[in-house]
Amino acid sequence: MHHTSKEMQTCIDNCLRCYQTCLGTAMTHCLEAGGEHTQPEHFRLMMTCAEICRTSAHFMVLQSPHHKHVCRECAEICEQCAQDCERLGDMDDCVQACRACAESCKTMAA
Amino acid sequence: MHHTSKEMQTCIDNCLRCYQTCLGTAMTHCLEAGGEHTQPEHFRLMMTCAEICRTSAHFMVLQSPHHKHVCRECAEICEQCAQDCERLGDMDDCVQACRACAESCKTMAA
Amino acid sequence: MHHTSKEMQTCIDNCLRCYQTCLGTAMTHCLEAGGEHTQPEHFRLMMTCAEICRTSAHFMVLQSPHHKHVCRECAEICEQCAQDCERLGDMDDCVQACRACAESCKTMAA
Amino acid sequence: MHHTSKEMQTCIDNCLRCYQTCLGTAMTHCLEAGGEHTQPEHFRLMMTCAEICRTSAHFMVLQSPHHKHVCRECAEICEQCAQDCERLGDMDDCVQACRACAESCKTMAA
Repeated sequence: MHHTSKEMQTCIDNCLRCYQTCLGTAMTHCLEAGGEHTQPEHFRLMMTCAEICRTSAHFMVLQSPHHKHVCRECAEICEQCAQDCERLGDMDDCVQACRACAESCKTMAA
Repeated sequence: MHHTSKEMQTCIDNCLRCYQTCLGTAMTHCLEAGGEHTQPEHFRLMMTCAEICRTSAHFMVLQSPHHKHVCRECAEICEQCAQDCERLGDMDDCVQACRACAESCKTMAA
Repeated sequence: MHHTSKEMQTCIDNCLRCYQTCLGTAMTHCLEAGGEHTQPEHFRLMMTCAEICRTSAHFMVLQSPHHKHVCRECAEICEQCAQDCERLGDMDDCVQACRACAESCKTMAA
Repeated sequence: MHHTSKEMQTCIDNCLRCYQTCLGTAMTHCLEAGGEHTQPEHFRLMMTCAEICRTSAHFMVLQSPHHKHVCRECAEICEQCAQDCERLGDMDDCVQACRACAESCKTMAA
């Protein structure tokens, strides 16, 4: 990879990890558990989080100067998703992946 | 758009319509209805259908000669999704969008 | 499609049209013309525009309340892409698709 | 992540690595070098490779049984991209990422 700082590579890694964790957990744990886990607002938030993480990583790989704005939005959505997963409980992987991604994205957005 | 035949443009349109219909229906109708509609196999199939349609359209826009193989896979997944939506009932938009997309994709794959 | 207002559907359509036009033009016209058309900043901007349009459409289909923020970013990038394509000339399809998308996205972001 | 075997996780990692390497190299090295590196067939192949890798990873995260077919297609495109990058030279990162991804995808497709 050319022109990618160590800090940006860490953020890409955290975004792609959070994307996998949110999407993978929604498709397995949430669908299998049902109840609050498939409540529309919660489930859509997880899908939204997966998509913004995928897009933030893409913007960084594209070397776009707009990655700062997308990373700022990504940090907000990840933070909200972490809170909602914490509220439901039994979703520690998601909470951790969202928090790590939010932290990296805040750094990139600064 | 350059170099895109009328037939290919119709297929791109049908893919992007099916992508929207499957994803949008899953996120609203299926999550709100629950029960069989959030049964893991059915719901994952709808998400899988949305993604392959998005990718098939992308391959055609990229002018990749590999679009034939991706369109063939797309036609198979759309056909399977149409059948599963028909089985559950009350998902006529999805059934129609999947069938139209499968038809176009078969033509492109030929 | 459930719960999608006419205004939002128009915006989704404009986003997916702009995504196709930017990506398709980059992959054909720009690569074939070379010179200024493959100058890194211009080409990356076209790829960035294609991706944010794809993502904005996705957020609206997901029914995410965060679509407002992504649409605002999309409007900015489309406006910048329209200006850069106008500067190079001979890219009227892109200019028009970007302007139409920027206009719709501004309405959704309001 | 739930239900993801070690072998599948390795394949997801290789797909997401190859996606980043092909897209990132195209957006920096290829655009900056020009000449053969922005020749339409080569450049589109790199973009096609990036997209199928992104999609293969998505199918595995979705736990879709169709991942086998998408991985088979991904292996073919990666192999072709590796050969084309080898031909141009000075693209060792891409060649290696494509070969590693092709290998994993062949295993998943079996």
